[in-house]
Amino acid sequence: MEEVRHVEIDGKMSVGELVRKMRAAGVMGGGTIGKAVDILEEMVKDKECKVFLGLAGAMVPGGMKKIIIDMLRSGLIDVFVTTGANLTHDIIESLGHNHFQGRADVDDVELEKKGIDRIYDVFMKDCVYEDLDNFIISLKDKFEKKKMNIKEFLWEIGKNVKSEDSILRVCYEKKIPVFCPAISDSGLGQMSFMNLINRGVIEVGAFGDLSEIQDIAWTAKKIGVIYLGGGVPKNYIQQAMQFMPTKANELGGANYGVQITMDRAEPGGSSGAPLREGLSWGKMNPGGKHVTVICDVTIALPLIYGALKERV
Amino acid sequence: MEEVRHVEIDGKMSVGELVRKMRAAGVMGGGTIGKAVDILEEMVKDKECKVFLGLAGAMVPGGMKKIIIDMLRSGLIDVFVTTGANLTHDIIESLGHNHFQGRADVDDVELEKKGIDRIYDVFMKDCVYEDLDNFIISLKDKFEKKKMNIKEFLWEIGKNVKSEDSILRVCYEKKIPVFCPAISDSGLGQMSFMNLINRGVIEVGAFGDLSEIQDIAWTAKKIGVIYLGGGVPKNYIQQAMQFMPTKANELGGANYGVQITMDRAEPGGSSGAPLREGLSWGKMNPGGKHVTVICDVTIALPLIYGALKERV
Amino acid sequence: MEEVRHVEIDGKMSVGELVRKMRAAGVMGGGTIGKAVDILEEMVKDKECKVFLGLAGAMVPGGMKKIIIDMLRSGLIDVFVTTGANLTHDIIESLGHNHFQGRADVDDVELEKKGIDRIYDVFMKDCVYEDLDNFIISLKDKFEKKKMNIKEFLWEIGKNVKSEDSILRVCYEKKIPVFCPAISDSGLGQMSFMNLINRGVIEVGAFGDLSEIQDIAWTAKKIGVIYLGGGVPKNYIQQAMQFMPTKANELGGANYGVQITMDRAEPGGSSGAPLREGLSWGKMNPGGKHVTVICDVTIALPLIYGALKERV
Amino acid sequence: MEEVRHVEIDGKMSVGELVRKMRAAGVMGGGTIGKAVDILEEMVKDKECKVFLGLAGAMVPGGMKKIIIDMLRSGLIDVFVTTGANLTHDIIESLGHNHFQGRADVDDVELEKKGIDRIYDVFMKDCVYEDLDNFIISLKDKFEKKKMNIKEFLWEIGKNVKSEDSILRVCYEKKIPVFCPAISDSGLGQMSFMNLINRGVIEVGAFGDLSEIQDIAWTAKKIGVIYLGGGVPKNYIQQAMQFMPTKANELGGANYGVQITMDRAEPGGSSGAPLREGLSWGKMNPGGKHVTVICDVTIALPLIYGALKERV
Repeated sequence: MEEVRHVEIDGKMSVGELVRKMRAAGVMGGGTIGKAVDILEEMVKDKECKVFLGLAGAMVPGGMKKIIIDMLRSGLIDVFVTTGANLTHDIIESLGHNHFQGRADVDDVELEKKGIDRIYDVFMKDCVYEDLDNFIISLKDKFEKKKMNIKEFLWEIGKNVKSEDSILRVCYEKKIPVFCPAISDSGLGQMSFMNLINRGVIEVGAFGDLSEIQDIAWTAKKIGVIYLGGGVPKNYIQQAMQFMPTKANELGGANYGVQITMDRAEPGGSSGAPLREGLSWGKMNPGGKHVTVICDVTIALPLIYGALKERV
Repeated sequence: MEEVRHVEIDGKMSVGELVRKMRAAGVMGGGTIGKAVDILEEMVKDKECKVFLGLAGAMVPGGMKKIIIDMLRSGLIDVFVTTGANLTHDIIESLGHNHFQGRADVDDVELEKKGIDRIYDVFMKDCVYEDLDNFIISLKDKFEKKKMNIKEFLWEIGKNVKSEDSILRVCYEKKIPVFCPAISDSGLGQMSFMNLINRGVIEVGAFGDLSEIQDIAWTAKKIGVIYLGGGVPKNYIQQAMQFMPTKANELGGANYGVQITMDRAEPGGSSGAPLREGLSWGKMNPGGKHVTVICDVTIALPLIYGALKERV
Repeated sequence: MEEVRHVEIDGKMSVGELVRKMRAAGVMGGGTIGKAVDILEEMVKDKECKVFLGLAGAMVPGGMKKIIIDMLRSGLIDVFVTTGANLTHDIIESLGHNHFQGRADVDDVELEKKGIDRIYDVFMKDCVYEDLDNFIISLKDKFEKKKMNIKEFLWEIGKNVKSEDSILRVCYEKKIPVFCPAISDSGLGQMSFMNLINRGVIEVGAFGDLSEIQDIAWTAKKIGVIYLGGGVPKNYIQQAMQFMPTKANELGGANYGVQITMDRAEPGGSSGAPLREGLSWGKMNPGGKHVTVICDVTIALPLIYGALKERV
Repeated sequence: MEEVRHVEIDGKMSVGELVRKMRAAGVMGGGTIGKAVDILEEMVKDKECKVFLGLAGAMVPGGMKKIIIDMLRSGLIDVFVTTGANLTHDIIESLGHNHFQGRADVDDVELEKKGIDRIYDVFMKDCVYEDLDNFIISLKDKFEKKKMNIKEFLWEIGKNVKSEDSILRVCYEKKIPVFCPAISDSGLGQMSFMNLINRGVIEVGAFGDLSEIQDIAWTAKKIGVIYLGGGVPKNYIQQAMQFMPTKANELGGANYGVQITMDRAEPGGSSGAPLREGLSWGKMNPGGKHVTVICDVTIALPLIYGALKERV
C-alpha cells in the first residue's frame, strides 16, 4: 500500500508541481485531481487514442471558453459534444458581447427590469439576443446545401463566425466534429428555427449525426473520454460506445476516462453516475483507466489543464 | 410571522395529512414539500393554466412510471418533455421486460460478464435491446408520412405500443404533445436511426417541434411548470417562455412552478438553478408561485403526488 | 432478482401504504425509505436491542421536535446523543418562545437590525437569549451535587424545564441517558459556563460520560443506531462500538442501522460516510442490516416515522 | 460591471498566476477561489486581526497535515479549533504510523478481517490504536497539575509529542490555543478517558475553555475566520462572536471570512450555512469581506494556500 504523503507548499510552485503533490497524497478529492492529470497525459500521448470531449453546464458564462478553445485548437480533442447553450453563449461573445461578474443573492425581479439575465452569479444583458437574431438572419444565403445534419449546420455557422476567439469557429477551422443533439434546446436553436428552418432555408435532421459519431467510436483503436459536467453530451458519447458490432479494441468501451461533476450518484441519473458504472454497460473498458472528480468544473478544469499543459 | 409548528405523528395518517403537517411546520425541506402540493393544487384547479411537465433522470428504472402515466392520463399535464432514456426504458417495459432491484456497491465488470447493465442500484438485462431493435424494425411500414417532427415520430411509436402501461402510448392516446429534443441521445434514438432514418424510411427534423411548444406557451393564459430533474426537459420548457412576442399573461413567464432536484445551484448549470433565477429571464412570472424542492425525485414525487391526489 | 414494481398512487393512502409501495419499487432514494422503515420496525421489535439515536443539524428549528419527543417518550430510544444547539432551541421553546417561518433569500444585515437570527429559512428573535440566560441563572441553587458529568448536568436542567413539550425534560423523566459531548459549543453551553461553571456553582467533566455510553454499548446483546444528520452525535455513537473488549454480540458492531443525511461521502468526513464504511472498523456488524437515506431529514423523518408508527 | 475574463492557460504557470486568472474570471467556483485568496491575503496582512482556524473532516488522513502545520508554524493562525479525530490521526502519525492510499469501492468486511479501518478511500491499520494507547499511558506522570481545561490538556500532550511533524506539538511550541470541545468524541478522547481521567490522574473540565476563546474574540480589534469544513469547530468559533458585551470592533462579528465546504445550505445545519447567514446573528461584520467556497478541502486548500504563500 502506498502511504498518504502530505501535500507540502513550499514557496512559489508551478501548477504542475502542486498537482504532483496532490497525486502523491493520492486520496480524496485532491487525489482524483492528480489521477485525472496522469490519465489525461497518457490519453493525449497515446497516438492510437481518439479523444471525445463532452461539455455541459454554463461553461462559457463561467469563464472556461479559452481553455476549451485551447483544448480544441491544440489537437487534444477529436470529437466535441456540447449543449446548445454553450454554443449560444460562444456566438454571443463572438459578436462582441460579454458576460459579467454578478451575484447570486440578488433580487431577480429587479434584474429583469434592468434587462439582465442571471446565470447563477453571472449577468448577461438580455439585448444580446437581438444581435444573435441578426447574425442568424445574416446566414440565410450562406448555406451550401439545403439538407444537412446538426454537425454540418454548426460548421456552417462556425465558418461565418468572425472572431477567432470562438469555440464554434475553431471546430470549423480544425474540422473537429461538433455534435449537439439538443441544439433546438437553446437560444441558438430557437433563432435558427425561426429564421432558417421555419422559413424553409434549410432542413436539419435530428438523427443523422449518429452515423458519424458511431463510425468514429467503432473504428477507433483506443478511446478517451473527458466529461465536463454530465447531461446529453456525456450520455451521447457514452452511448456511442454501447453497441459496437465488431469491437476494434477487443473488449470495447473507453480506455481512458476523466469526468468532472458536482452531481451525486444516488439519484440515479447519468450525470452523477461515476464512470465505473459504464463498465457494466461495456461503455468503459475493464482494462482502462478512469477517474471521477467531484468538483466544480471552474475550479478543477483550470487546475487540471494547467498541470497537463506543463507536462505535454 | 408564522411560527414553526412541529410535525406531529399521531397513529395512522393519510399522506395528505402528513404533508399538511409539513406545510404547517413550513421550513426547510419538509416545508418545500408542503408548499409544492399547495402550488400544484392551485395549478391543477386553475382552468386557464397549461401545465408543462419536464422529466429527466432514470425515472422509469427508478419506479416512477405509473405516477407519470397517472399524471398524463388524468389530464393534469398538457405538454410533456422528456429525455430519450425514459422513453427507451418505457418501451422496453412495454415489451415485457423489467428493471430489477440491484445494488450500487457491486463489481461492474462482473455485471458486464453476466449481461447486466447498471443504473445506480437498478439492474437491467442487456438483451432487452434485441427486442427493442425488433420492435423498431416492425414499425417500418407503419408510418403515415415520410417527413415528420420528433413529436409526430413519438406519437407514431406510441400508437404501436401494445401495453396500456406505457408513457408513450398514453401520450398518443390522450394526444399530449411529447417533446424529446435529444431523442438521438438514447437507445430508442440509436435504433430508430439504424432501422428507420438511416434506411430512408422516414425523415425527422431536429427543430420543427419548437413551433408547437412555443405556440402553446405563447397563447396560454396561464402557465404551470413541473420539473422532475433538470437537463434538457427543464431548459426546453423554460426557453419556450423566453421570447414571448405578445405576452398573453401580461408579465410573461410561468405562473406556477414546482421543481424537484438534487443538483446544486453553485456550479451554475440550468439543472441546479432555483426557479427564482427564471424571474430575471422573464421565464417565471414575478407574481407567480414557485418552489424548488431539494430531494430525490423517487422520494418527493410519491409523497407530493399522493397528497395531491387526496386533494383533487 | 426482484423486479422494480412501480409506485402506484390510488386515491387516499396512508403513509404506511405509500412507504410499502416505495419498498416494493425498492431502488434509489424511495427504496431506501422503504428499507429504513423495515429495519426500524425490526430494530424496535427486537427486545434484545438497545437503540442509540444521534441527532445533529437544526432539527428543533426545523420542526422535528415533536417527533423526537415521541420517539423518546414511546420507549423506542435507549440512548440519546445530540448537539448543544438542539438542546438550546428546545429550552428556548420550553420558555414560551417560537421559531418562525422565514426565508433564505433575504438581506441578513436587515435581519440583524430587526433582531432576527436566521437558520436557513427559519427566523428566531435574538431576545430569546435573555430568557435563556435567566433560566440558567435560576438553576444555580438547584443542583444536588457539585461535580457531575454532562449527562447528569443535562438531566438536572431537564428536571427544571416546566414545559412537558421538551426533549430535555422527557429525557429526564424517562431517565434516558442524554449525551452531548460538545455541550460547550452552544448557547446553552455558553450561558451555563458564564452563570454556573465560571461562578463555581458546579464542575462538569468533559470525559466522564464515556464510561456510561461504553457500558451500554459493550453490554448490549444487540445494538441499533439511528442517525439524523452526522456530526459529533453520529461519531460519538459509532466510537462507542469501536473498542469492545469482550464482544457481547460475538462479531461486534451495530446490528441495525438507519442514517439520514444530505452529506456526501467523497469529501471523506464521518457525517457523509455511508454506514457500510463502519463495517471495516467493526462498528457495524457484518450480519446486520443498515441503510443510508440520502435525504433532508425534515422530509425523510416524518415519512419514515409516520410509516413506522402505523406498524408498531 | 466587471466582465468575465476567461481563464487562459499559457504554458507553465505558478499557482498564484492560475488563481489570479480565476479571480479575473470572477464567477462560479473558480471565482470564489480567487476571492478567498484575496481575503486571506488581506486578513494575514492586517496586523490588528486575530485569525481563528476551524478544522473539521478527515483532514489528516486526507493529506492536509503539512499545510495545517505550516499555517500554524508561520504565524498565520492565532486560535485553532479542531475535532478530536484530526488530533487522533495527528498523534498516530507522530508515533510513526501512516495512512494509506486505498479505495472506496471495496468490501468492508474483508477490510475488517485484514485489520484495516477505512476513511472513504484512505486505509489505516487498526493496530495503530495500541501505540496510541501506550502513548497516552506514558503521559500519566507528566502532568504539571491535576485540574485543567481541554486546551491545557492538549498542550500537555503536544509537549510530549516527539515528532516535529505534528499539529499538536506545533500548537504547544507556538503557544497557539487549541480548542477541541468534543475531545471525548475521538480515539484520543477515549484513551485519555480510560488511562488518565477514569484512573483519577487528571480532571478535565468541559466548559472552561469558553473563557479563553471569548476573551480573545471579545478583545480583538479585528477578527478573521477560516473554516475548513463545518461541524463543531466552525460553530464554536462563530459563537465566540455572538454575545460580545462591549464590541471592540463597533459592529461586531468577523471582518474576514473564508469557508470551504461541500455541505449544502438547504438542510439548515451550521456546516452548510453560507457565511452570509452569520450577518443576521452579528457573527459576521456587515462591513467585512467573506466568501464560501463550495469545494472539497483537499482540492481547494492546496490551491488557495499555494497562491497565498506566493503572495505573502
